[in-house]
Amino acid sequence: MYTYDYLENFTREVFEKMGCSREDAKAATDVFLAAELRGLSSHGMIRIKDYFQLWQAGRINVKPNIRIVHETPSTAVVDGDGAIGMIASVRSMEIAIEKAEKAGSGWVSTRNSNHFGIAGYYAMMALQHDMIGMTMTNANPLVAPTFSLTRLLGTNPIAVTVPAGKHPPFVADFATTPIARGKLAVAGKKGEKVPLGYVQDKDGTPSDNPDILKEGGSMLTLGGDYQHGSHKGYCMSAVVDIFSAVLSGANFGPFVPPSVAYLPVLDKKTGEGTGHFFGAMRIDAFQPADEFKAKMDEWIETFKSAKPIAGQDEVLIPGELERRKEEKIRKEGIDVILPVAKEMKDIANFLKIDFEIMS
Amino acid sequence: MYTYDYLENFTREVFEKMGCSREDAKAATDVFLAAELRGLSSHGMIRIKDYFQLWQAGRINVKPNIRIVHETPSTAVVDGDGAIGMIASVRSMEIAIEKAEKAGSGWVSTRNSNHFGIAGYYAMMALQHDMIGMTMTNANPLVAPTFSLTRLLGTNPIAVTVPAGKHPPFVADFATTPIARGKLAVAGKKGEKVPLGYVQDKDGTPSDNPDILKEGGSMLTLGGDYQHGSHKGYCMSAVVDIFSAVLSGANFGPFVPPSVAYLPVLDKKTGEGTGHFFGAMRIDAFQPADEFKAKMDEWIETFKSAKPIAGQDEVLIPGELERRKEEKIRKEGIDVILPVAKEMKDIANFLKIDFEIMS
Repeated sequence: MYTYDYLENFTREVFEKMGCSREDAKAATDVFLAAELRGLSSHGMIRIKDYFQLWQAGRINVKPNIRIVHETPSTAVVDGDGAIGMIASVRSMEIAIEKAEKAGSGWVSTRNSNHFGIAGYYAMMALQHDMIGMTMTNANPLVAPTFSLTRLLGTNPIAVTVPAGKHPPFVADFATTPIARGKLAVAGKKGEKVPLGYVQDKDGTPSDNPDILKEGGSMLTLGGDYQHGSHKGYCMSAVVDIFSAVLSGANFGPFVPPSVAYLPVLDKKTGEGTGHFFGAMRIDAFQPADEFKAKMDEWIETFKSAKPIAGQDEVLIPGELERRKEEKIRKEGIDVILPVAKEMKDIANFLKIDFEIMS
Repeated sequence: MYTYDYLENFTREVFEKMGCSREDAKAATDVFLAAELRGLSSHGMIRIKDYFQLWQAGRINVKPNIRIVHETPSTAVVDGDGAIGMIASVRSMEIAIEKAEKAGSGWVSTRNSNHFGIAGYYAMMALQHDMIGMTMTNANPLVAPTFSLTRLLGTNPIAVTVPAGKHPPFVADFATTPIARGKLAVAGKKGEKVPLGYVQDKDGTPSDNPDILKEGGSMLTLGGDYQHGSHKGYCMSAVVDIFSAVLSGANFGPFVPPSVAYLPVLDKKTGEGTGHFFGAMRIDAFQPADEFKAKMDEWIETFKSAKPIAGQDEVLIPGELERRKEEKIRKEGIDVILPVAKEMKDIANFLKIDFEIMS
């Protein structure tokens, strides 16, 4: 177990040693640590090695000139200049919030970025400004649209946050696939089968093999098959791709660059880097903030009062589960599994900083 | 079979006789007919009787004062004044487009409206202005969130349209449930079973009975069950409800008023009428329109070039199927099934206008 402060200090040092400014290193660190706190360790410390190796390979820019290249009162395209995804994204979301302060809403499409970690982090930045927040990103092509054998989409997540009054905020953060890729990998390592509806084999036949992606298979969109509405998951995932990459001029669909250094850079480009989309809407751009929050409290209470099905204690509000995990993890500490702790130790040795294995 | 013009004239006359202005009657008629043209007859002529009966019951306002009650450069709340949903929605989308012209994007949350027909119609209004369009609406509570026995949500559709260059536009229009309610009703009438993942019984057990809603059951969100990501469908549906109703001050979740006169007005209100959400973003608010359209053509060509699974001829672009239906229906005419044609005849007799049964 690690304390928050220990990992925070270490992660910040890693990015500073890689050449990031103090401010940028802090921004990236906050996103990695937020993933750990929310129980999403698949997007936490485990990903630091990916960035470290991309840096070693000269595939990310630690001194980026992140800038607006096109704008209107409520919109902007941001060029991330090849930055670490978290750094380009925090800046982009800040711009969306600044636009919303003046114009009621702000919408930013970002190109030339990289993998940005948990989508929810940026959408949650809006909450402290009494704004609704939104984040989307495209991602490495692992997912086949309905009726396709070809992988054309990523797990393309969407996050939407809504402030409430006396209740904690509504925080939805979900991939547009039935499950996250990390869960497939875990099932594969355990030698377990997965339910039909997650993946198909190279011929398009539904499969229960979590390792099928290594054999030319693909993940499926939310819905799983056409009968169960996979074309609706495809629609959502396509919207994420278009808003993130076609609007910004990033690489779309199958051309999203790999987020790990052990995969080669793709031959074809349709734009610059990975793309994201960020939105912020002031709640008082629609009605007085206090009235909105009281109504949102009533919404939450209505949904919490639903009768649960047998075997379940309650109906959850989006974000409730992650918030409970955060309370627990803040108290008990952050568990970093031994293989990941060893990776951190190797990185620490390389960069000549301290890291103690406490797994 | 009917010609477009015949049904267009008839529908316009119905709404004019009910007391709508010529302009409002035309607006509503265009939406009903667009549903027929796109092969979505579940949202076409069959729904006119519902509006006729709501009018007879004094539950809609045919002389509405639709107005902006709160606004910023890029946002507005519109009060529909109890109008026919199509009329409040066309006006709301026009406002979103006007805002986008000036501020880059426009976002309108509308309260005090009614069932608005096909969501895609309003999102498609943006296309002729070289804008991305978006529509959402809440709807009568038939759907249970993940782990809930209580119906708290509607089939809450989302539509997103994106202009392209030489290719037809991208038009996604989908409910946040595996299937539309109409398809359940059809299966029920035919005495067919439905796949698991569509509905649950009153105890929360998955059911294959399409009539289970009459026995206390409920529809499920996209994903079908928790294992297959129904909580992601729940998140989306909840976002639609919050954007449509909490932002605008309409009735949310279980309090959405019935869209048919044979169901009584609900005892409890949490706002005014049904709520919708509309968005428009100028594509040249992000990059030059020509460049965007060329890139969108490339996106479409990439997805069309995907290898289809066995038994399928092609991978479809969202909206492609409906466009093909429209081409066919424009050529062959609009088929109105006999029971619906008879309803039209009854309405015609009541209003003393002409209607010929040609089914």
